[in-house]
Amino acid sequence: MIKNDLFLRVLNGEATSRPPVWMMRQAGRYLPEYIKIREKYDFFTRCQTPELASEITIQPIRRYGMDAAILFSDILVIPQAMNIEVQMVPNVGPVIPNPVRSLKDLDQVIIPEVNESLGYVFDAIKMTKEKLEGQVPLIGFAGSPWTLLCYIVQGRGSKVFELAKQFCFNEPEAAHLLLDKLTETTIEYLKGKIKAGADVIQLFDSWGGILSPEDYLKYSWPYLNRIIDALEDQVPVIMYGKGCWFAMNEFNKSKASAIGIDWTCAPKTARSLVDSKRVLQGNLDPSYLLSNPTLITNKVNQMIGEFGHQHYIVNLGHGITPKTPLDNVKAFFDTVKNYQALEV
Amino acid sequence: MIKNDLFLRVLNGEATSRPPVWMMRQAGRYLPEYIKIREKYDFFTRCQTPELASEITIQPIRRYGMDAAILFSDILVIPQAMNIEVQMVPNVGPVIPNPVRSLKDLDQVIIPEVNESLGYVFDAIKMTKEKLEGQVPLIGFAGSPWTLLCYIVQGRGSKVFELAKQFCFNEPEAAHLLLDKLTETTIEYLKGKIKAGADVIQLFDSWGGILSPEDYLKYSWPYLNRIIDALEDQVPVIMYGKGCWFAMNEFNKSKASAIGIDWTCAPKTARSLVDSKRVLQGNLDPSYLLSNPTLITNKVNQMIGEFGHQHYIVNLGHGITPKTPLDNVKAFFDTVKNYQALEV
Repeated sequence: MIKNDLFLRVLNGEATSRPPVWMMRQAGRYLPEYIKIREKYDFFTRCQTPELASEITIQPIRRYGMDAAILFSDILVIPQAMNIEVQMVPNVGPVIPNPVRSLKDLDQVIIPEVNESLGYVFDAIKMTKEKLEGQVPLIGFAGSPWTLLCYIVQGRGSKVFELAKQFCFNEPEAAHLLLDKLTETTIEYLKGKIKAGADVIQLFDSWGGILSPEDYLKYSWPYLNRIIDALEDQVPVIMYGKGCWFAMNEFNKSKASAIGIDWTCAPKTARSLVDSKRVLQGNLDPSYLLSNPTLITNKVNQMIGEFGHQHYIVNLGHGITPKTPLDNVKAFFDTVKNYQALEV
Repeated sequence: MIKNDLFLRVLNGEATSRPPVWMMRQAGRYLPEYIKIREKYDFFTRCQTPELASEITIQPIRRYGMDAAILFSDILVIPQAMNIEVQMVPNVGPVIPNPVRSLKDLDQVIIPEVNESLGYVFDAIKMTKEKLEGQVPLIGFAGSPWTLLCYIVQGRGSKVFELAKQFCFNEPEAAHLLLDKLTETTIEYLKGKIKAGADVIQLFDSWGGILSPEDYLKYSWPYLNRIIDALEDQVPVIMYGKGCWFAMNEFNKSKASAIGIDWTCAPKTARSLVDSKRVLQGNLDPSYLLSNPTLITNKVNQMIGEFGHQHYIVNLGHGITPKTPLDNVKAFFDTVKNYQALEV
C-alpha cells in the first residue's frame, strides 16, 4: 500500500484538493548529495548498480518529499542492451562510436532478453521500492523509439539530428525496422519494470518536436502508441513529447493516462486541445528555477490556476537544469504542497 | 526597375501563377565557391568587406537563379556596433567575451550612429545592387532584439539560453533597457539598409520559440512589433519566428507583409491561423535537402499544394545546413520554377 497516493489518484481520474507534484530530472545533478556520488562512480556505473541507482532515486524524496519518485536511469540503456555501444563522455554527452547508418548496420542490432541484459534496472526498482517503504509511487520511464533512433543514427547529441532524418528519408525500410526493434524491446523492458514494481510509466519523446507533423505521424507516434497500447490495464502511462504541440490530438485520443506538455504550450491552450478531465502534466520553464523563490511561488500558483487544480500534475516543462539553487527548488515544491483550492 | 519582380508582387498581395522561391542561408556554407572565399578571409572580414559580402550574396543567384537575393551578413553586427565585442570562433560559433549580466554592464552599451559603425553593410548593399543589375530584389535582415539578447547575455550559443532568461526574470528593468537599446539601433540600421537599396526586410526571431507564450509577449514580440511599425510604408517586412507557432495570432494582426513559418507548423495549420490571402513563407525541413532529388521534388510540390500557390513564398523552414548536396538544392529551386498551377 502506498501512503501518499495523490499522484495515483489523479492519474486514475479522481478529483483532488491539490495537484500532485514531481519534477523531471529530480534525481540528479542539482543535488549536492548526488554530486558526491558522481565524483566516485561514472555515469553507467551509477545506472547499473542498484544500490547507487536506488539511493539517487530516493535523495530528492528525502530532501523535498514530492509526491512521486522517478527511477534514476537513462533512456540509452535500451540501445546498450540491443548491442549498440553507448559511451557517456563528460561535457559532451552520449556518444555512439558505431552509429547505425544503413540496413546492413542493423544486422548487429538485437532484440535482447531483457531479464538478462536489463535485469540491473529491475533490481534497482525492487531495491528502491524497499527503501521507499510505500511513501510515494515510483515512476519508471523509457525514451520514444524515435528519440532513441536520433542518437543511434546521429551518433551523439545534436540540435537538428539531420543524419537521423536523412536516414529516415533515404532508407525508410531500415528506419522502420530499427524503430520496430526499439519498440519491441521497449515494451518488454517496460513490462519488466512494472513487474519489478514501477507504479507508473512515463514515455519521453525528447526529440519528437524536431519533426514535421507529417513525419511525426510516420516515424514517432505509431511506435509510441503501440507501447501505450501494450501497457494498457497494467499501470498509468504519461506521454510527454517535447515540442509536440502539433500532436496533442493524437495524444488525446490515445490510451495514455496523462499528457505531459512543455512551456511553449500555454496551459489554457493545452486544455483547449484535449477532452475535459484529461490529466495534464507540466509545464514551468525550468529556467524559472534560476530566478528567485518569490517569482517561483507566483508562477506556480498562476500555473495551477490556469491548468485548474484538478486533473493536473505540477511539473516543469522539461528537466531541471544543473546549478539550480536548492532554495528555489524548495519554493517550487512548497508552493504546490501548500496550495489551497478555493473549491474542491 | 527589377526584372524578376515575382517576389515583390506576392509581398504586395498580387495573385501569381507560381510562388516565388528563395532559401534561408542561401548565401553561404553549402556552396564550393563560398568555401573558397572562407578559406582566405575570416567571418567578420567577409561581412565587413563590401566586395566579399556582395560577391557571396550573388553566388547563389548565379548558380540557381532564385527569385530573391539576401545580403550575406550576420545578426550579431548590431551588438558589435553597440560596443559589445563578438568573436566568431570556428566550430564553436559566436562568443561574447564580456556578456551583459547586470544593469551596470549596460553602461558600456551604446546606441551607435549607424552610418559610422555599420556603413560597411550599407556599402555592401549598394555594391550588391549594382552587381545584381536589377535581376531580382535584395533582402536585408536583422535578428530580433530578444534573439540578440540571448547571445549578449548567455555569451555564446546554447540550447536553452538559461542565463538570458535568468537575466530577464531577475533583472527585468535591465532586460527591458537592453531590449530597448537593441530595438532603437535595429530600426536605424534597417532604415539605413532600405536607404542603401534593400527591397525587402526579413526579421529573424531565431530563439523566440524557447520562450513561453506569456514571456514571448513580454520580452520579444513588443520590440519586434515596434520595428515592424517603424518600417511601415517603406518596404515589405517578413516576420520569421522559429518555433513561434503560439504567436501566429500576433504576427497575423501586425503590419508585416508576410509571415515565415518553420516545419513544425503544418501548412494547413498555418493557413488556419491567419487571415485569408495573408502571405506565408516556408517551410520545408532543411534536412529534406539531405535526401534525394525525387523526394525533394515530391515534397516541394506537396507543400505548394498545401499552402496554395498564391500568397505564398517557397522557402525552407530554417537555414540550409552545411554539406547539403548541390543537386538537391537544384531540385528544390527547379521544382518551384517549373511549377504549373492548374488555375491561376
